[in-house]
Amino acid sequence: MGVDEDFIFDRATRLHESSDGACRAEISPKWNIFGVPNGGYLAAVGLAGLARLVPHPDLLSVSAYYLTRTQPGDVLIQAEAVRIGKRLSTGVVEVEQDGEPRVCITAMYTDLSLARGLTHVVSRPPAFPPPEECVKAEGPVAPEFVQNFDMWLTPESAGWATGRPSGHAEMSGWVRFVDGRPPDPASMPLFADCLPPAIFNLMQPAWTPTFELTVHVRARPAPGWLQVRFTTRYLQSGYLEEDGEIWDETGTLVALSRQLAQAR
Amino acid sequence: MGVDEDFIFDRATRLHESSDGACRAEISPKWNIFGVPNGGYLAAVGLAGLARLVPHPDLLSVSAYYLTRTQPGDVLIQAEAVRIGKRLSTGVVEVEQDGEPRVCITAMYTDLSLARGLTHVVSRPPAFPPPEECVKAEGPVAPEFVQNFDMWLTPESAGWATGRPSGHAEMSGWVRFVDGRPPDPASMPLFADCLPPAIFNLMQPAWTPTFELTVHVRARPAPGWLQVRFTTRYLQSGYLEEDGEIWDETGTLVALSRQLAQAR
Repeated sequence: MGVDEDFIFDRATRLHESSDGACRAEISPKWNIFGVPNGGYLAAVGLAGLARLVPHPDLLSVSAYYLTRTQPGDVLIQAEAVRIGKRLSTGVVEVEQDGEPRVCITAMYTDLSLARGLTHVVSRPPAFPPPEECVKAEGPVAPEFVQNFDMWLTPESAGWATGRPSGHAEMSGWVRFVDGRPPDPASMPLFADCLPPAIFNLMQPAWTPTFELTVHVRARPAPGWLQVRFTTRYLQSGYLEEDGEIWDETGTLVALSRQLAQAR
Repeated sequence: MGVDEDFIFDRATRLHESSDGACRAEISPKWNIFGVPNGGYLAAVGLAGLARLVPHPDLLSVSAYYLTRTQPGDVLIQAEAVRIGKRLSTGVVEVEQDGEPRVCITAMYTDLSLARGLTHVVSRPPAFPPPEECVKAEGPVAPEFVQNFDMWLTPESAGWATGRPSGHAEMSGWVRFVDGRPPDPASMPLFADCLPPAIFNLMQPAWTPTFELTVHVRARPAPGWLQVRFTTRYLQSGYLEEDGEIWDETGTLVALSRQLAQAR
């Protein structure tokens, strides 16, 4: 994608070859949320190992399963291109740490610039207040994670942070990389997991581990702000889905996401 | 799950050991849709190979990637339990045919009867007309597939079949196995892919291959009818998501699904 590796996201997802020829990466603590690496970031690191094995430039779909907690530090990336086709390539990745599998990833790549066919869109980007009328995610209580972004929550979404949850399981706002890196398909899994859980506006914030995260990249994003909305409709016996929509500055839907998580 | 193997679904997902000790299955042409095996059925066959390797009884989440077309007939099922934990187990499956990978599956299992935690549900099952006031999917033009079900589309959803598409990308109705087999977590991937594409109510029916299907099982279904609704909001340059919701007869959400497909 021609993205400069001096950007923080690219540095944090860089791979290296260890002395035995294996592909490894360093999970940076700068993407932690209260001591634990963000799941979208872990998926992005694993995908870096697969992207170089396939000829298609754009991530189309990724499903990441989080088997157990990953710590910041060294990981082994075992990626395999399972099928390379004319229009699509598919592969799998296992992210291992200390000899144990931590994340299992399957992903499909394509060339989104070649997408042809009908367009019929019935959902529009929601009318959020502009970023300057939103609430910036920052300050000493915010996890290390948010310092990588210019992130603004809608006033309603930000209620939970000051003890006034909105009562609706929605978390919405504007987000972009703090260092000006343009969004691209490879960073969509990260943006699909970048806001606090939507249920924080429903209940007391709780530890909410993700079991599974699937992201569909639906278009290459234009440079600039991303508008994101995450909602939960079904919290049942502690299990919940969180559905995400990501639009770029032109109002095009660039990714849909869903995760399965548990509020503990 | 104690389900009797005399039911058609159980017969069609049965595994056998070949002379070389490999795990194989026979993809039955009875689950074809215009000559091609249904994707949810293929996922269910692959999962049968994994379910017996994990100690937890209930499918919690599955993501299936369809690399290329599978034909009815013999397949090799290569399943591996990647991690068996106390509360969750995760594994991967590759479905091969003629030496080529066709479907890559990742899945997580748990014991849903042990689910504990908050419940807060903001979506209710839609108010469909009862099955007897719906339109039965049957007759000589219906694919072999529907003969395995007692399947009724809502009058609005059924419009496409008589040249009167509703204009809304929604396909909804009632469904159960024709032979009285109760629904269970293992059959949710099948039910999540059992109706015609929702976009058939929007455009001329077209070949709509699925790239990826993820199903979250949210509760063990009660015996009886399933109420299903599938919708597409974003058809963009031929790519589309189809979101599914499945409720049991008690009105409990038992599965959420999403697939990424292409209208060709």
